[in-house]
Amino acid sequence: MKVSERVNSLRRMMEEKGIDAYVVPTSDYHQSEYVGEHFKARAFMTGFTGSAGTAVFTKDEAGLWTDGRYFIQAEQQLEGTGVGLRRMGEPGVPTVADYLKAVLPENGVIGFDGRTVGVDEGQVYADIAADKGGSVVYNCDLVDTVWEDRPPLSEKAAFMLDIKYAGETAASKLERVRDAMKEAGANVHIITSLDDIGWLLNVRGEDVDYFPLLLSYAVVKMDSVELYADERKFSDEIKAEFAGNRVCIHAYNEVYEAVKRLGDGDVVLLDPKRMNFALFHNIPKGVKTVKQENPTILMKAVKNDTEVKNIRNAHIKDGVAHTKFMYWLKKNIGKMEITELSASDKLQEFRAQQEGFLWPSFEPICAYKEHGAIVHYTSSPETNVELKEGGLFLTDTGGHYYEGSTDITRTVALGEVSQVEKDHFTTVAVSMLNLADARFLYGCSGMNLDYVAREPFWRQNLNFNHGTGHGVGYLGNIHEPPAGFRWQFRPNEIQPFEENMIITDEPGIYIEGSHGIRTENELLVRRGEKNEYGQFMYFEPVTFVPIDLDAVNPALMTEKEKTLLNDYHKKVYELIAPHLTEEEQDWLKEYTRAI
Amino acid sequence: MKVSERVNSLRRMMEEKGIDAYVVPTSDYHQSEYVGEHFKARAFMTGFTGSAGTAVFTKDEAGLWTDGRYFIQAEQQLEGTGVGLRRMGEPGVPTVADYLKAVLPENGVIGFDGRTVGVDEGQVYADIAADKGGSVVYNCDLVDTVWEDRPPLSEKAAFMLDIKYAGETAASKLERVRDAMKEAGANVHIITSLDDIGWLLNVRGEDVDYFPLLLSYAVVKMDSVELYADERKFSDEIKAEFAGNRVCIHAYNEVYEAVKRLGDGDVVLLDPKRMNFALFHNIPKGVKTVKQENPTILMKAVKNDTEVKNIRNAHIKDGVAHTKFMYWLKKNIGKMEITELSASDKLQEFRAQQEGFLWPSFEPICAYKEHGAIVHYTSSPETNVELKEGGLFLTDTGGHYYEGSTDITRTVALGEVSQVEKDHFTTVAVSMLNLADARFLYGCSGMNLDYVAREPFWRQNLNFNHGTGHGVGYLGNIHEPPAGFRWQFRPNEIQPFEENMIITDEPGIYIEGSHGIRTENELLVRRGEKNEYGQFMYFEPVTFVPIDLDAVNPALMTEKEKTLLNDYHKKVYELIAPHLTEEEQDWLKEYTRAI
Repeated sequence: MKVSERVNSLRRMMEEKGIDAYVVPTSDYHQSEYVGEHFKARAFMTGFTGSAGTAVFTKDEAGLWTDGRYFIQAEQQLEGTGVGLRRMGEPGVPTVADYLKAVLPENGVIGFDGRTVGVDEGQVYADIAADKGGSVVYNCDLVDTVWEDRPPLSEKAAFMLDIKYAGETAASKLERVRDAMKEAGANVHIITSLDDIGWLLNVRGEDVDYFPLLLSYAVVKMDSVELYADERKFSDEIKAEFAGNRVCIHAYNEVYEAVKRLGDGDVVLLDPKRMNFALFHNIPKGVKTVKQENPTILMKAVKNDTEVKNIRNAHIKDGVAHTKFMYWLKKNIGKMEITELSASDKLQEFRAQQEGFLWPSFEPICAYKEHGAIVHYTSSPETNVELKEGGLFLTDTGGHYYEGSTDITRTVALGEVSQVEKDHFTTVAVSMLNLADARFLYGCSGMNLDYVAREPFWRQNLNFNHGTGHGVGYLGNIHEPPAGFRWQFRPNEIQPFEENMIITDEPGIYIEGSHGIRTENELLVRRGEKNEYGQFMYFEPVTFVPIDLDAVNPALMTEKEKTLLNDYHKKVYELIAPHLTEEEQDWLKEYTRAI
Repeated sequence: MKVSERVNSLRRMMEEKGIDAYVVPTSDYHQSEYVGEHFKARAFMTGFTGSAGTAVFTKDEAGLWTDGRYFIQAEQQLEGTGVGLRRMGEPGVPTVADYLKAVLPENGVIGFDGRTVGVDEGQVYADIAADKGGSVVYNCDLVDTVWEDRPPLSEKAAFMLDIKYAGETAASKLERVRDAMKEAGANVHIITSLDDIGWLLNVRGEDVDYFPLLLSYAVVKMDSVELYADERKFSDEIKAEFAGNRVCIHAYNEVYEAVKRLGDGDVVLLDPKRMNFALFHNIPKGVKTVKQENPTILMKAVKNDTEVKNIRNAHIKDGVAHTKFMYWLKKNIGKMEITELSASDKLQEFRAQQEGFLWPSFEPICAYKEHGAIVHYTSSPETNVELKEGGLFLTDTGGHYYEGSTDITRTVALGEVSQVEKDHFTTVAVSMLNLADARFLYGCSGMNLDYVAREPFWRQNLNFNHGTGHGVGYLGNIHEPPAGFRWQFRPNEIQPFEENMIITDEPGIYIEGSHGIRTENELLVRRGEKNEYGQFMYFEPVTFVPIDLDAVNPALMTEKEKTLLNDYHKKVYELIAPHLTEEEQDWLKEYTRAI
């Protein structure tokens, strides 16, 4: 069935139900950024497979809203589908809400699957409908009826994370969360975000491609945890461990009925940003709620000492794999057939040789030449191209290890590259290195520091259309809140950097139809000197892979910037060389030389 | 009467009225930052004369809350008064609200003059009292009864600002404000902020020391403006001009009764951040209000082309005066008696020689050696010291001209200064120059850019305990919202820089008991290239006075930083030299030489 036929089917369903506008967001029932196959309703309905986007269907129009990372990809995938691309953030492009306000008729009805829409977002739709004298219908999953061969919910087994990896027992984490509940005056805490549940109970699953997450809801009470998940996923060992922490297992979907039984005496701590509209509205009106960010968000983002030690190890393994790949690529380019996909496989092969490696930490981006300009490009058999001498090859990849998750981008010169490519590469490198070298007072958030990364671009009237960095989970989500680097103000991102947070530093440049460059290290937040001015902080890079000197133009760098690069490369050699063959070591020596 | 006796009198009044805690903020009835003599109740009650602070009195305790700029000054002035200093922002120091929560007894009463307390602040007190089953009393000015020889309200004449200075007629400004009212769905707009009223009606007064403001309230309606002010201040010419714009004059205090007559059909646009608690609560409950920032705030901050042209002129005049002063100081130090106060007078004398000069734009700070470390130091006959060879002399001064207001800080080496002073001076200069050289995309606020100024300090584990810059009014307030440079998040300061805003750039360093250094230029926001990435922006300095090369250590500067300083000095010479004597020109040539 083609996209246009799916849309027609949906429109017939809409007409039957009296729905004027139907919204299909990119979400599972847990407000996850990436979702399992069962939940890819927006991709099914539009053909656009990027990780972020919202589709809206009316009788006459079909639109897909997505952000700058995906403009090029979406344009290609939407071609011929009849679904129009709405470029979010561009002048003259209305938001989804503004669009609905404009097109919804008087007494109109907005429909959506309330399990896939957040509390605030659903409320926006409800308000828009109410303003027109209409209403929302949120208990209808229309895509489900259109989607005949919809993949079932994942049934893969769960696994526990040993204390030598997690660094803190679930019992201890539960105690901290219950302290936070007490402080908020709550006796019940509903957690629906999968990475928070995984962190809290030291449990992982395989229910979302790449992300080791378990489809579940947790209702934390003062003396038990009600866990809503498919019981078949748990081994007897897991069940025994759960029992020790008074974790009771219930069927996954039962949570919607269970919250209806909350009583007048209950005070429920919940995070409206991380709860779906349907679950929220199933809580009886008389129950008092305390709305705040899940306490687990900050607890999880601040890695414990065991996690930090493990993460440093994981990154050395990952650096070894990536450096071996870089050497292999430089040596074999032009001598054998290498494609985007085969290179991606080769990189994974090097990672798989590392002890404790599980699987890639997200869908690999391996993009040659102009494909690199598509920020979240995914190579597929249809788009796959051969790598040849000349041009830049960008890989944004990572691995999940028991010792943590990695996220690294390198752009490599395959043979000779042009002067403008070198200059752009140098700008990106300088940007990344300067941000990693920031020194700041405790209290700073990414909004304070993002300028450091943007400055080399902005001075040349250039920019890149994505955030500069994001938190990274420990065997969890690769994009982990609350910290990150971003210059635009977002109320929930004014999060001071805390010691032991892990943030990526990944500026880039994207020239459509020509080339894309991104260089990404992960940074560990560290405490420096404390004096009468406050607590000073700095970053320690934990990613160790050469930044390709073949693409660097030293003439564009200040002495200080050269020192930053040379110091970084010195550490790369020290940490990575011991794990390489002699041949690889010789190569690494050359590629980490001082410039 | 000593401070302690005043406090005793106040406590007797509190007991009579059944008030447990009495709050005395630093404010007139208009939420002004600086206030006329009549309103200096907090200074009267504590002895602390700084521009920011809140006093709270209970039966047993008296406390004064102020911020880091004033710690040293407040410590000195509060000594022996029995009023304790509460250092805002320091660890373990409760906020005023937390303090009141802690000390207010059950059923307790918090008292304050509701005209001197903002809507939100008053509500905080009301909530604290309500939580204890108590209440607030806000219609009582207890200080008035204690203060026997209280200065009366100012009776000085108002004056109009000619169109050649204002650049836009009051009629045109009123039209823009009424458009904003319509957009907000309001038919009445109450403005209580004095600089907004002055800007809107092109009227100025002399009712606050240094600030050309008229004590007044304005109620803007769709076909008239009701202006509440002392009618005796207006000449017949002014009255005629007002009449032309349908501005009707009423007695100053009548506004409190007038707002009680607002009807159910009225929708009132008001700015809760700029309205006092008493006036707000006099609006009948049935009247609909739209709460948002006064539209005049942003309109006023974005200078028109006439204002920009005038401001550039004013700064050249001011630069000439200041450069002459610097030359005079360098030439005469050690040869004649010069004190902080006489130097301050001399600087004002040079300014007064400039055509169109009105008076100083704020209380001058002229601080020698360790006095410079007191951020908002004011020299008085008691603290005045002689300037001698050796040591740094800091002046933070400015002038009101018909062509705009200036705010400039320079620190000058009197003879030889120490190596650490030179190094600190260089750090401050580099910080100031780097910030002025920022290039950024439209949408950035001061929070994005402040790091540029902090970086040279933070890298040395140093800091300065004040904002890096603030907007500057045109013959209005010297601290003008909404833009500024500050790294800490404040919800109402996330204001993108708009073309033609004027912002100060004034980093500093303060070593208690030793020296203080600050260097301040004003920057004009300009538009640069616009391309596919957006609108690029930059700053144009409008302040032209040498940065004392006698205190610069070039060894600490990068090549780029030296270029920034040399380019700046080149412009100083070009613009200022033509207005100097030959002797002064020769000196300026030397002091603007390339390093």
